[in-house]
Amino acid sequence: MKLADVATPHRGGEALVRVQLAGVCNTDLEIVRGYAGFQGTLGHEFVGVVEDSPDRAQIGQRVVGEINVGCGACDWCWAGDARHCLQRTALGIHGRDGAFAEYLNLPPENLLRVPDEISNRQAVFTEPLAAACEILTQVKLTPEMRVAVIGDGKLGQLIARVLATTGCNLLLIGKHSDKLELAAASGIKTKVLSELELDPARRFEVVVEASGSASGLNLALELVRARGTIVLKSTFHGAVELNSTRIVVDEITLLGSRCGRFATALALLASGKIDLEPLIAAEYKLTDGVAAMTAARQPGTLKILLTA
Amino acid sequence: MKLADVATPHRGGEALVRVQLAGVCNTDLEIVRGYAGFQGTLGHEFVGVVEDSPDRAQIGQRVVGEINVGCGACDWCWAGDARHCLQRTALGIHGRDGAFAEYLNLPPENLLRVPDEISNRQAVFTEPLAAACEILTQVKLTPEMRVAVIGDGKLGQLIARVLATTGCNLLLIGKHSDKLELAAASGIKTKVLSELELDPARRFEVVVEASGSASGLNLALELVRARGTIVLKSTFHGAVELNSTRIVVDEITLLGSRCGRFATALALLASGKIDLEPLIAAEYKLTDGVAAMTAARQPGTLKILLTA
Repeated sequence: MKLADVATPHRGGEALVRVQLAGVCNTDLEIVRGYAGFQGTLGHEFVGVVEDSPDRAQIGQRVVGEINVGCGACDWCWAGDARHCLQRTALGIHGRDGAFAEYLNLPPENLLRVPDEISNRQAVFTEPLAAACEILTQVKLTPEMRVAVIGDGKLGQLIARVLATTGCNLLLIGKHSDKLELAAASGIKTKVLSELELDPARRFEVVVEASGSASGLNLALELVRARGTIVLKSTFHGAVELNSTRIVVDEITLLGSRCGRFATALALLASGKIDLEPLIAAEYKLTDGVAAMTAARQPGTLKILLTA
Repeated sequence: MKLADVATPHRGGEALVRVQLAGVCNTDLEIVRGYAGFQGTLGHEFVGVVEDSPDRAQIGQRVVGEINVGCGACDWCWAGDARHCLQRTALGIHGRDGAFAEYLNLPPENLLRVPDEISNRQAVFTEPLAAACEILTQVKLTPEMRVAVIGDGKLGQLIARVLATTGCNLLLIGKHSDKLELAAASGIKTKVLSELELDPARRFEVVVEASGSASGLNLALELVRARGTIVLKSTFHGAVELNSTRIVVDEITLLGSRCGRFATALALLASGKIDLEPLIAAEYKLTDGVAAMTAARQPGTLKILLTA
């Protein structure tokens, strides 16, 4: 795994983007631990400027970029969505060097112009924000629904802010009162795990697991009501033990959820409805990449950014 | 656990049914092994005759009975569906003596008259058949969909026959060629597990896990395509290990499925579209209950019935 290349060769037919700001995701930390067997340059959250592109209109634009690049020929790609193409590469995750570098390449059609009113420090969240928005395309949330998010880390914080925009009856559950206070400051109801009371008559219609731990998934199973839905948002490293009897007897739905579309996330950022600035822990220079990864690995650290 | 009471006391306000024929289910075998901690009389698959009922019109009718009895006051019961009432009892499974007895009790509203054209040997399958039909209320199957059922035992055989009625592109996967031949004789495509080729480009939109084994669930995860659905139909005894990364990355839906409504199953039996007679392995007298359970416990045994 390479962390901070200073240059990336220009791939034929693709755009060349000079990275301005990149974000460290837990998936990056998992990849360092061996998840996905990836050997290239890390990083899939970024905002940058197009230096060159077959689409000349893009040159000079400030952009973010969808991370999945498909084969262009299968049914998924044919439908304009490379996220599940079996031949796909994914920026900084699979078969394609990522954003922790001076430059990166992506096909022109993966790039989206960032509206001027969105700062780099907000735009850099487009990828994880889109992943959070993906939940809303999978589960319809309405104001009378009881919804819990498990995990007060980067991902849980983002998800809670996105789900709150639906007006659903939301509770963010975490272990860290300081981080829960960040969410509370955005008007989100929170509960420290140790103070959580499990009442079978007061279960949740939807529970989102964003703690990245096996215990989070099992807590989700205790919290969800019969015929309710658990959204699995964290990629664990390895197998988890699961009480499948609860799933069958109470007819629970377990729903995997990964990448979302960037246009939705950009529209949400442009609306000013959510402020992600409080989720930034620190900025490091790209050349201090190793120190940045060390900081990101500390339990409880929120978003670590890398600047050019 | 009591296996073969010869009489059951008459519960106030409930109907008294004289059991004519009962079926042994894998859940019964799991209960004997300790699942659900049940101590009463086993048995939840039956057909019988109403000897007494607060609903006088039922007396003398040949009936089957929905197994869940609710509190009558919660939101579930209010909606006319006790299957997920938190206070429910379940015939021969939880808080209520079952059908491996001369008589059983159920509330009159749980009983459904069996149309004359359905024999006892078919009607006794109403409960597991309803459970198989439940899948069709949860997942819409269409003729162009590729659907796999894992497990050639009693449950898998029933499910395959029910799903086949939708005209979907169905494959039953099992370990036993003799049992797969039973399904093939009903026009169902089958494959012995050892001959199954796993081709990621040829995965299934829907996979139903009915093998009752952890390995079946993990096979289901290999067989289902991205954004596909795994229906979990077996109650395992204890926890299973699961590759949750596959669920998240490929946005797979895992769907628990339990009891179905009896009216649907009776209509299907009355239509003559499926024949369950080939699934009967043997009939035992109720007084030979222990021998019946021993036979049912032999791997590969199909439906064991108990007669009055």
